[in-house]
Amino acid sequence: MPIYTDLALESRELNPDIQGVTEDSEQAGRVGITRIEVTTSEAAQKLQKCMGKYITLDAPELSSRPLDLFEEMTHTFAKELMQFTDRLSDNATILVVGLGNRYITPDSLGPRVAEQVYVTRQITTYLPDAIDHPVRAVCAVCPGVMGVTGVETLEIVKGVVRSIQPDLVIAIDSLASRRADRISTTLQLTDTGINPGSGIGNTRAGINSEVLGVPVLAVGVPLVVFASTIAKDTISMIADETGLHKDEEKLLNLAEKVINENIGPMIVTPKDIDSIVQDMAKIIADGMNLAFFKDNYNEVRSLIA
Amino acid sequence: MPIYTDLALESRELNPDIQGVTEDSEQAGRVGITRIEVTTSEAAQKLQKCMGKYITLDAPELSSRPLDLFEEMTHTFAKELMQFTDRLSDNATILVVGLGNRYITPDSLGPRVAEQVYVTRQITTYLPDAIDHPVRAVCAVCPGVMGVTGVETLEIVKGVVRSIQPDLVIAIDSLASRRADRISTTLQLTDTGINPGSGIGNTRAGINSEVLGVPVLAVGVPLVVFASTIAKDTISMIADETGLHKDEEKLLNLAEKVINENIGPMIVTPKDIDSIVQDMAKIIADGMNLAFFKDNYNEVRSLIA
Amino acid sequence: MPIYTDLALESRELNPDIQGVTEDSEQAGRVGITRIEVTTSEAAQKLQKCMGKYITLDAPELSSRPLDLFEEMTHTFAKELMQFTDRLSDNATILVVGLGNRYITPDSLGPRVAEQVYVTRQITTYLPDAIDHPVRAVCAVCPGVMGVTGVETLEIVKGVVRSIQPDLVIAIDSLASRRADRISTTLQLTDTGINPGSGIGNTRAGINSEVLGVPVLAVGVPLVVFASTIAKDTISMIADETGLHKDEEKLLNLAEKVINENIGPMIVTPKDIDSIVQDMAKIIADGMNLAFFKDNYNEVRSLIA
Amino acid sequence: MPIYTDLALESRELNPDIQGVTEDSEQAGRVGITRIEVTTSEAAQKLQKCMGKYITLDAPELSSRPLDLFEEMTHTFAKELMQFTDRLSDNATILVVGLGNRYITPDSLGPRVAEQVYVTRQITTYLPDAIDHPVRAVCAVCPGVMGVTGVETLEIVKGVVRSIQPDLVIAIDSLASRRADRISTTLQLTDTGINPGSGIGNTRAGINSEVLGVPVLAVGVPLVVFASTIAKDTISMIADETGLHKDEEKLLNLAEKVINENIGPMIVTPKDIDSIVQDMAKIIADGMNLAFFKDNYNEVRSLIA
Repeated sequence: MPIYTDLALESRELNPDIQGVTEDSEQAGRVGITRIEVTTSEAAQKLQKCMGKYITLDAPELSSRPLDLFEEMTHTFAKELMQFTDRLSDNATILVVGLGNRYITPDSLGPRVAEQVYVTRQITTYLPDAIDHPVRAVCAVCPGVMGVTGVETLEIVKGVVRSIQPDLVIAIDSLASRRADRISTTLQLTDTGINPGSGIGNTRAGINSEVLGVPVLAVGVPLVVFASTIAKDTISMIADETGLHKDEEKLLNLAEKVINENIGPMIVTPKDIDSIVQDMAKIIADGMNLAFFKDNYNEVRSLIA
Repeated sequence: MPIYTDLALESRELNPDIQGVTEDSEQAGRVGITRIEVTTSEAAQKLQKCMGKYITLDAPELSSRPLDLFEEMTHTFAKELMQFTDRLSDNATILVVGLGNRYITPDSLGPRVAEQVYVTRQITTYLPDAIDHPVRAVCAVCPGVMGVTGVETLEIVKGVVRSIQPDLVIAIDSLASRRADRISTTLQLTDTGINPGSGIGNTRAGINSEVLGVPVLAVGVPLVVFASTIAKDTISMIADETGLHKDEEKLLNLAEKVINENIGPMIVTPKDIDSIVQDMAKIIADGMNLAFFKDNYNEVRSLIA
Repeated sequence: MPIYTDLALESRELNPDIQGVTEDSEQAGRVGITRIEVTTSEAAQKLQKCMGKYITLDAPELSSRPLDLFEEMTHTFAKELMQFTDRLSDNATILVVGLGNRYITPDSLGPRVAEQVYVTRQITTYLPDAIDHPVRAVCAVCPGVMGVTGVETLEIVKGVVRSIQPDLVIAIDSLASRRADRISTTLQLTDTGINPGSGIGNTRAGINSEVLGVPVLAVGVPLVVFASTIAKDTISMIADETGLHKDEEKLLNLAEKVINENIGPMIVTPKDIDSIVQDMAKIIADGMNLAFFKDNYNEVRSLIA
Repeated sequence: MPIYTDLALESRELNPDIQGVTEDSEQAGRVGITRIEVTTSEAAQKLQKCMGKYITLDAPELSSRPLDLFEEMTHTFAKELMQFTDRLSDNATILVVGLGNRYITPDSLGPRVAEQVYVTRQITTYLPDAIDHPVRAVCAVCPGVMGVTGVETLEIVKGVVRSIQPDLVIAIDSLASRRADRISTTLQLTDTGINPGSGIGNTRAGINSEVLGVPVLAVGVPLVVFASTIAKDTISMIADETGLHKDEEKLLNLAEKVINENIGPMIVTPKDIDSIVQDMAKIIADGMNLAFFKDNYNEVRSLIA
């Protein structure tokens, strides 16, 4: 039973020797940037991550929440995002999809981002004279979750895509990490979309370009660690340090038992997760606004406010 | 410039002599029930209300918010609603559409109802064995408002209807009344759907059976009075009592001026509107749950909770 | 039955000829500043406003909510507030009291401001070494309202004042205006505190310096107009324009009847009151932070964030 | 470094052989009741729990959230609480203190309970004629947390107690447990109050009868497990099963290192903690309302609603 992670960066850390992966990293001020590309289907299978690009921004100091680093993270994210949005025309239509449940805190990232994106499509459609230059038509929907609405998220997204014909879809979702200290400090941007069960095999169920017929980006932030991961990591480390490697499998079986009996589907999260989600949602929304409206940010901002 | 109201009951009060309208009322305990049917297009034009049935429940004592009257209102509403839902099969699909903006209090009725409806479609679709008898497949979506999402509400509703093929759509929305004392005490149920601009002429823009191709009900509660209505009503009453009828038009023109200069698009609302919306949303959601799951309410409730 | 207003500026407008009042105004960019001082107890009685200073900031363009005007308003407010806070020592203790009910939107200004003020007293008390220079010890409490807590607001405030011995108390509260168009555009700062029933006579029930034994400021924003005011204003204007002055009293009696029967304790408010309260709370909190921490704003901000 | 728990029941489980503790349990329907009394200061020291009574209600099936079990839990809690409230006179004053931070979900239990308690003191004080029989004067305050208000919680509570002179204080707070599966299923009622750092030694800092001079109860629900507890428990179990007891200390040191480096102050919590806090707050508030107003519950309920 492997450790579960939504971060390609962590899949890679756990499998450093697999072929079919390119990787490079740079430091931009206080933000580390790692670019991983999964280039073969064998690598995708082994890493449990779809073929495509994964850009990870990481700023450990974010955990103490300094306001100026929020701004640095916002601009670094905007710059990475522009690699994808700069290909779009000046009057392109962009659909932001906020996944997750607004009323479950660690699951509320998507809806919170959607609330803060500058929505312009009603202006470009009905009041085109309110603006001097071409402005991208941004819209934002929160399809909710199946258990709450009774309608499959993908069906709602498909319906909206069919109706408004966007040039780009960006889905936002909470992620699970394997390390608790990544919760407030990391952000992943990928061109593979959102793919349930790591997107191997059944890509038809995902929110991705194959299914929707348009380019799909996904932005996510690790907001939970499964409690079982903590137990597994503890044991691995003990096995490493004690040289008890011959017993590691036995120990892991025991851990499995502890987890099933005592922990169940619990998650690990910081106590101030409410503030963290709020901060990270603001970083993502601000970064998207900067990238979408690169040439007319102030004009759009005054129209929207 | 006529007084605006979303209540057919009030349109009728203002135009008591128009032909093409049938009307009857009864008292069920502390709840008054008025049934109005607009039967000709001439009457529809004059009343600014689409042809169809309008059922109004009215309980003045609700303003002091006694818990037992909430229950009475809930059951009376459920009974009226069953006239429409009893025609549906035991495994029919029902789509609840919560209109309005969750973050503007007097506009939040729809989303609040949608949150409290028992959503069962994910169970009937994926876990049919969890239930012994046929259960209606209820789902609930909140399409937001154009200004917030950038996507037309009707487009989102059409997409969901196409995808899940419901047998009935029920839309919930806040209404404007002409009398402030109706705000916490009245509820309107109609089979005409939601029709912008009173639905005369362009019914193609409405959430109604003509557009969606399935029966559409609408449930609404008056939660605002336009401030201009207060001024107009005051003047009409003064004209009545002073015999200044010959000057009424002149007075109304003056009032118009006052309103435009001092009041603008202000609304009149009770200070405790937050609690009122919450209470009325609960009455509607509970009433719908009772009507939808008439034969297996307790079983569904325990599955959902 | 006179028109009710919490704004000294409006009391003055309604009584322009009363002696014992000094008044001057200036324009600071897009913000108008009016300074009124009630200097005699006769004037206080006639204006129904306690003796003392009232500073009103007014920016009509705020109604379209431009971000840069928010900043201008914030800095103008901070500057006016500094006239009072600059007298305090560098390590003075300031108690912010957020009056009102967090869950009734137009009554939620006080609690919302209290949430956003930079609270430093726990640092100055327990971690004095975390800061290089003297920092004012700011604390913020929301005593709730009697109906919600069952404890008199004044009793809670007195208890806190006795315990922490502040050098200044600043109370924040929602106000009632007589003109709807002041709702999103005006802010009043006074050194008379908060005085129920206009503070004439029984000043012992107020949150003021006489009762608390320390200087007390109050900051308020008009967020409601009583619906009855709309009716009265409409009639006054009609009487003015028609020359029906001899009948004005009769008309006002009629209006009184309309109001009692149809309107009751309704309030007039813009539909987007939720956003307006949020914006005005931010202006007040930001302005207080700038004034309180004039010499070390950035240091404090990074400690708090 | 011992495992931390706020539950006396768990302290006892970890130290089953200590003298100076009486203990008995019974099963009331689906709710288990355990009554523990710490009778000597030696036992208090060893268990890190103050001398006094601890009543724990436990209903494992609550995790699937059946509505009828909520009612059973409510009534069982009310019955236990009556052992303390039945000693009070019919017009006694009760102060409910909701501890914690309303905006941090697992810390919001106290404020949520305080919001739902039937507050009657403003009626008994100002409208005594509204009620036929003596009614207890209940009031409810949420003093916030030091970091948010800058004022010590205990100082605010002391001020209110001095002002209203209650006959009983009941404090509500979130607890930390050592087992994740207790999070949605357990409730502790104690007559020892709230005592920081387990209340050993410095009882002067606690919200207890010694400090406040009136009887003080505390009600709590485990809503978090410290993530470090998961690691420690895993290792203990492994040591048990592998017979590696001689290495347990070494292993625990390693675990300590893992925890410090990777986990920090993380907490373990179910993903749907928002719903759980809401449900448990309702159980506690309903139970208190039933106990406080044992003889006139319906009358009070209709006055309050």
